[in-house]
Amino acid sequence: MIRQIVLQVGEREVAWPTELFLYLADRAQHVTELIQPALRSGMLVLCDRFMDSTVAYQGYGRGVDLAMLRRLNDIASWGIVPDLTFLLDCPVEIGSSRTRQRFQTASSVTRAPDAEPEGLDRFERERLDFHEKVRQGFLEIARAEKDRFVILDARQSVAQLHDEIKRVVEERLMA
Amino acid sequence: MIRQIVLQVGEREVAWPTELFLYLADRAQHVTELIQPALRSGMLVLCDRFMDSTVAYQGYGRGVDLAMLRRLNDIASWGIVPDLTFLLDCPVEIGSSRTRQRFQTASSVTRAPDAEPEGLDRFERERLDFHEKVRQGFLEIARAEKDRFVILDARQSVAQLHDEIKRVVEERLMA
Repeated sequence: MIRQIVLQVGEREVAWPTELFLYLADRAQHVTELIQPALRSGMLVLCDRFMDSTVAYQGYGRGVDLAMLRRLNDIASWGIVPDLTFLLDCPVEIGSSRTRQRFQTASSVTRAPDAEPEGLDRFERERLDFHEKVRQGFLEIARAEKDRFVILDARQSVAQLHDEIKRVVEERLMA
Repeated sequence: MIRQIVLQVGEREVAWPTELFLYLADRAQHVTELIQPALRSGMLVLCDRFMDSTVAYQGYGRGVDLAMLRRLNDIASWGIVPDLTFLLDCPVEIGSSRTRQRFQTASSVTRAPDAEPEGLDRFERERLDFHEKVRQGFLEIARAEKDRFVILDARQSVAQLHDEIKRVVEERLMA
């Protein structure tokens, strides 16, 4: 329900504090209901986006104070920090064109190639300079926490990335 | 939509950080869309509950750090602080029995007098000791900001309270 509010709000402008607090609310409930019980029962939890996304998007992207975001992240995730984080990094233009392709493939309607794809959420419609700030943010976070992060070149093929991730997971988490 | 999530969630336990962030998101959007434009156009804005409720419920009631709540309040309300705040204070037992009465009057079904009233939201179902902490929190906040607060004895009649509020508003805001 929270994700629907923040991603699909159409007729209204979502203020950045609203966006920030909704993401934190979503994370808090997700960690409480799903991640914490899973970790307690000894499971390995794989999560697509977590606290680093808040720092990258809201902090580096929108300019919210980084120290305060880290404190809010701590509250929202009850202090849980991933043991291992993969950053799949690629130039903004490539990421953006992949997103557009995904929607064009999914769509059955033929459109002019430069038409604005339908179905993109608010973040995917943001301009390239915003995404560039977010990308540099992710890279700075990763460089500051070298032990936790593995930066991968996302221009590689799916098969190559799969092999590399598998190798690192086996080495670091299964040892 | 946000209020519906936080008040009417039935089958799930809402974690306190989820609750806190949802209220802040709600406040941020409300201030951005409604209060700020109204103040800019010279209107007088009357608001039923605002930032003090966050400090009283989440801070004094649930034990969240007060200094951090004040910082989050600042972000959610873009630094806007009311010129005048009325605290309608009464003993917790009276407030609680009024709430129950309100629902019994609204309901057309005859029930045993000690039955749990239907339709109460999560806060109204909280136990009395929680409401006592919240009450003491409101009183501390009010005493710390004597210039902004007017504490009223809510055991008075509606007519008496109306007269007193009207007198203070005319004296302080219309002068």
